[in-house]
Amino acid sequence: MASTLMLLSPIGAAVALIYAYIVAQRVKQQPEGTEQMAKIAALIRRGADAYLKREYRGVTMVFAVVFAALMVLSYFGLMSIFIPLSFVTGGFFSGLAGFFGMRIATAANARTAWAAKNSLNGGLRLAFSAGSVMGFVVVGLGLLDVSIWYYFLEFYYRAMPEAERIVLISSLMLTFGMGASFMALFARVGGGIFTKAADVGADLVGKVEAGIPEDDPRNPAVIADNVGDNVGDVAGMGADLYESYMGARVSASAVGVSAGLGLGGFVLPMALAGFGMFCALFGTLLVKTKEGAGQKELLGSLRRGTYFSSVLVAIGAYFLVDLILGKGYLGIYIAILSGLLAGIGIGYFTEYYTDGSYKPTQNLAATSETGSATIIISGLALGMKSTAIPLLVVCASVLVSYLAAGGTQSFSLGLYGVAISAVGMLSTLAITLSTDAYGPVADNAGGIAEMAGLPEEVREHTDLLDALGNTTAATGKGFAIGSAALTALALIISFVDQVSLFEVNNGVQLLNLNITNPPLLIGLFIGTMLPFLFGSMAMEAVGRAAQSIVLEVRRQFREIAGIMEGTGEPDYEACVDLCTKSAQKEMVVPSLLGILSPVLTGLVLGVNGVAGLLAGSTASGFVLACMMANAGGAWDNAKKYIESGHHGGKGSDSHKAAVVGDTVGDPFKDTAGPSMNILIKLMSVVAIAFVNVIASYSLFF
Amino acid sequence: MASTLMLLSPIGAAVALIYAYIVAQRVKQQPEGTEQMAKIAALIRRGADAYLKREYRGVTMVFAVVFAALMVLSYFGLMSIFIPLSFVTGGFFSGLAGFFGMRIATAANARTAWAAKNSLNGGLRLAFSAGSVMGFVVVGLGLLDVSIWYYFLEFYYRAMPEAERIVLISSLMLTFGMGASFMALFARVGGGIFTKAADVGADLVGKVEAGIPEDDPRNPAVIADNVGDNVGDVAGMGADLYESYMGARVSASAVGVSAGLGLGGFVLPMALAGFGMFCALFGTLLVKTKEGAGQKELLGSLRRGTYFSSVLVAIGAYFLVDLILGKGYLGIYIAILSGLLAGIGIGYFTEYYTDGSYKPTQNLAATSETGSATIIISGLALGMKSTAIPLLVVCASVLVSYLAAGGTQSFSLGLYGVAISAVGMLSTLAITLSTDAYGPVADNAGGIAEMAGLPEEVREHTDLLDALGNTTAATGKGFAIGSAALTALALIISFVDQVSLFEVNNGVQLLNLNITNPPLLIGLFIGTMLPFLFGSMAMEAVGRAAQSIVLEVRRQFREIAGIMEGTGEPDYEACVDLCTKSAQKEMVVPSLLGILSPVLTGLVLGVNGVAGLLAGSTASGFVLACMMANAGGAWDNAKKYIESGHHGGKGSDSHKAAVVGDTVGDPFKDTAGPSMNILIKLMSVVAIAFVNVIASYSLFF
Repeated sequence: MASTLMLLSPIGAAVALIYAYIVAQRVKQQPEGTEQMAKIAALIRRGADAYLKREYRGVTMVFAVVFAALMVLSYFGLMSIFIPLSFVTGGFFSGLAGFFGMRIATAANARTAWAAKNSLNGGLRLAFSAGSVMGFVVVGLGLLDVSIWYYFLEFYYRAMPEAERIVLISSLMLTFGMGASFMALFARVGGGIFTKAADVGADLVGKVEAGIPEDDPRNPAVIADNVGDNVGDVAGMGADLYESYMGARVSASAVGVSAGLGLGGFVLPMALAGFGMFCALFGTLLVKTKEGAGQKELLGSLRRGTYFSSVLVAIGAYFLVDLILGKGYLGIYIAILSGLLAGIGIGYFTEYYTDGSYKPTQNLAATSETGSATIIISGLALGMKSTAIPLLVVCASVLVSYLAAGGTQSFSLGLYGVAISAVGMLSTLAITLSTDAYGPVADNAGGIAEMAGLPEEVREHTDLLDALGNTTAATGKGFAIGSAALTALALIISFVDQVSLFEVNNGVQLLNLNITNPPLLIGLFIGTMLPFLFGSMAMEAVGRAAQSIVLEVRRQFREIAGIMEGTGEPDYEACVDLCTKSAQKEMVVPSLLGILSPVLTGLVLGVNGVAGLLAGSTASGFVLACMMANAGGAWDNAKKYIESGHHGGKGSDSHKAAVVGDTVGDPFKDTAGPSMNILIKLMSVVAIAFVNVIASYSLFF
Repeated sequence: MASTLMLLSPIGAAVALIYAYIVAQRVKQQPEGTEQMAKIAALIRRGADAYLKREYRGVTMVFAVVFAALMVLSYFGLMSIFIPLSFVTGGFFSGLAGFFGMRIATAANARTAWAAKNSLNGGLRLAFSAGSVMGFVVVGLGLLDVSIWYYFLEFYYRAMPEAERIVLISSLMLTFGMGASFMALFARVGGGIFTKAADVGADLVGKVEAGIPEDDPRNPAVIADNVGDNVGDVAGMGADLYESYMGARVSASAVGVSAGLGLGGFVLPMALAGFGMFCALFGTLLVKTKEGAGQKELLGSLRRGTYFSSVLVAIGAYFLVDLILGKGYLGIYIAILSGLLAGIGIGYFTEYYTDGSYKPTQNLAATSETGSATIIISGLALGMKSTAIPLLVVCASVLVSYLAAGGTQSFSLGLYGVAISAVGMLSTLAITLSTDAYGPVADNAGGIAEMAGLPEEVREHTDLLDALGNTTAATGKGFAIGSAALTALALIISFVDQVSLFEVNNGVQLLNLNITNPPLLIGLFIGTMLPFLFGSMAMEAVGRAAQSIVLEVRRQFREIAGIMEGTGEPDYEACVDLCTKSAQKEMVVPSLLGILSPVLTGLVLGVNGVAGLLAGSTASGFVLACMMANAGGAWDNAKKYIESGHHGGKGSDSHKAAVVGDTVGDPFKDTAGPSMNILIKLMSVVAIAFVNVIASYSLFF
């Protein structure tokens, strides 16, 4: 039965990709609106292409180097040959998903604006359709990658007895998320730097120096700014969740096998993910709204889709567990449920802390009356405070999963519960991600409507769609953080399993995971600090990259005649290209920090030090990510709340103070915060890939 | 030999207290200067008395309640009767140290200003003398408290065989820091809220609303503001380090005994602390400077004292280890050295990141040119980045201590190395603390010189002394954080030891300190989050408390006739009293969070959850404390750097941006940051005190 249900994964992959293709075609058949709209959209598209071109050039180089290095290590027997190979496929598929996502998002923006002209529902459907292309491509390729490798390895090792084979395969596949992790580094960290550098750079010269409004086509950096929205929230978010999606499944499978559940333990996460794709598909079809709907109704229609998908998963998972593992595993089912609920819970509380319709953000807005210092202090305090509930939600989910799965009797079965709860959370990823990727499309649509001078009525529609996008962005961020933390936990458990395997194979005794064991404790301390260091690098990178944009925009104003008069055309692509280049340059040091830390810690402090490092960085990265995302989101929305007429409205001193808050929040929520998700998963997966190296060559321990 | 050298502790206590008494008398014999100076000083003194009165009223109530609760628990056999009793002595001695410290600091401020009138060296000597009264009182009472209890318990249990007795005594004394912890809560957390509420409150109404300058005697909150400096940096810092001093010694002693070193293991930390007092005394005598000295020379003279003391400890400790433990314990000596060096190292790097004469703060000042948002972002990034080196210094010290003490052969001996390195760091506490407490005296002296209109030349002297105080404050903060972290680590190790003891006594098996054990992992997550929540509460508390001061000052302006004309006298004491009251009210919730977290976590997640909680909060609290202290310090000094004529100087836009940074930094560096030190130690010591309760009544594990 297990091997039959494994088919849910490849079939799900095929259906998801076909669905995405159909939706994409439907989106592209819609009209792009007026000539000017088409022109602006084409500019953004060309900008996005410039981004992708430069991006893939950098990625290819890095992947080539890492691939070669991994091949050398595998040549010396320090890792399986499949690690370098899967590294390439993982990166390729993740990159492909980003490519399609960017393509469709930049194709849909003008079309959304035009559709919103006729009806709000039309706009919503179109933007959401574009988002769902991203959602289903990510899930489809994620399912495909794992399926291909699984069937290939099963065939490759067909001579081996099944019990042995599944142990080997699950352990091999553990690192198959590493390619996705590296791709996510580029997309999320590099993308985060890109998007804020473009934003800040455009504002600094355009608004401040040249005195032209935001989104003015005379600003050479304006297209980079618009491309940036897609780079951050489409490509970045997609790669982040692609990585979680990979990591959660392969680690849950591996933990299941090492818990002694055999093929069933391996298949359950894979089948659940495939099944979840179908649930998400049904949920997606429910997303529509009636004319004259307000923000509440719009949000309601998106929620309906997500909740419906979750209910379907909740029902179906029961039967999946029953069919795959047999009777007596109700606890595993409860673990899946708890993950699913935790995802929804985190999203809700993120919204509570960052949305202008709730007390926290409204109170924050009120502190703007006493100046920028007060709103900064209060925003930081809000961010710090807001970490408590999401963290407790994740903790509760871990506790419930562990206890329900029977952790007090069988430790490893309990850990399987923890690992599979991450898969439960991510099972409806296709629709969650659709909702996320909807945001930048709506945002760009609003921008195009403004630039193309569409009538007030259309702008009202696009504003409504855009405001909704801000809410879903906040929820999405919470979800991304929560799933990253759970995935990282599952990977840590897998790391320890791999060390045990090494111990058995090499007849050594290495593990002393006692929390008072000094190497582990030191690792924990270093791990706790790393997200701070990483975040600080990301924030400083934005400043430097923005500086390079400023110089470029100044150069264009100086050298290209007639830009300000509208007779000369600015070189938008040069700005995009420069942004990408600076972002790539700036991400080198933080990336190396993330990649080398587990290896260097391992070489000095041994496997126990690495375990401490991973646990510390996961906990601290999670808290810091929440803090930064929520403080940033709340500052942003406090500003919007003031702009909507409170505390003196636009142009008042309060508003000026709120703008300072928003500016501080930008690198928080769009660069440093989301980078934490990548850091914690990357470190875990690198540790797993290098487990033999660390275990063999550690200096002191 | 060990029991003879134990005498170093009571003798050291006596000498320290006598020395402090002599110095205090000498300080008091100095003239207070002009009539106006004496009047202002008397006002500050009366304010300080009002603070102390209100403070002790609150403290007495809380201590009575906690004492009663502990007595009930001890009645039911859940803890030793000595825990409630020592709770009272610990709190009493810490409070007494704060009382003497505040008294001497407020007696010395005008005298320092007057002495600086004649010679720079005179001012330095006097302010430093006042500081050293605090330093030696803290160390003297700290040594006395432990000595009294040790000899009492030895007498009480005299019928017991020595080996058994020392196990019992060391385990009993472990919680003897709890009283000091509670007192530190009031002094450091409450004091932190007090000092910033008074500062902000005074500025908001005085400077902003009434338009009178800072330090203007017409402002009813001005005395509260001046008292606040002493509350924070004298009483708060003193109580913080008193707690570390207690915690480090008793935990090192307990770990030494459980490592099987018997009486010698117990005595070494105690004797080392007593011996260190003498070294600090010699160092203190070296602190003087020549006329016409600049800031560098002044700093040099303070450093000379500290370094000389450290060298003396480094030499003497070798013989102490040899005499007490016998041959073959060179590693323990190295552990002591590494702690000593780590303390100096952290201080140095803190200074590097926060002092205006180094690159980081200068670069930060430069970012003020693009406005307040940029200087906030850069300051936060600086703070985050600056956590790396201090943390690595502590980690290196732990690693060296563990390895040198032979941790790879004997785990428990290695842990003794870690624990005793904390004592090594704190061995020269008397002089380190003298240097810290010097700061607020010099600061107040400058204020009095300004208010009393002393000639320019005197003010130049007091400015120099004050600037030096800012540097030593930064160094002192780093030292306090580092020693708190090491002390907390030692306490965590002791907590685990106590659980083992419980296991043996009750024939149960509870410990599973494996870092992947879900209850422990959850505890770790919660522990990582708590400092964020605690810090956010502290920051919000400052805002609310300041608001109450604003209302009071407004009321006085309205109701007391002639304040603004200088004919009516404002009611300064009412402001001080209100500040104290609000601070006490505001510290209730965060304090309960710190006290209840380990107990509640223990009841839900068991002893392993608590171990995770303590490790997580220690790591995260350490990092957050560094970040907040350093960001705050750097903002403060960036402002001063600009005021000294860079980037447009005082009144420029850069300066305005820097003021915003400084305002954000205030609650960071003076309230939330230092509170972390208390939180992490308090949680550990509460966990130890409640070990029987947790181990007996845990719900799930």
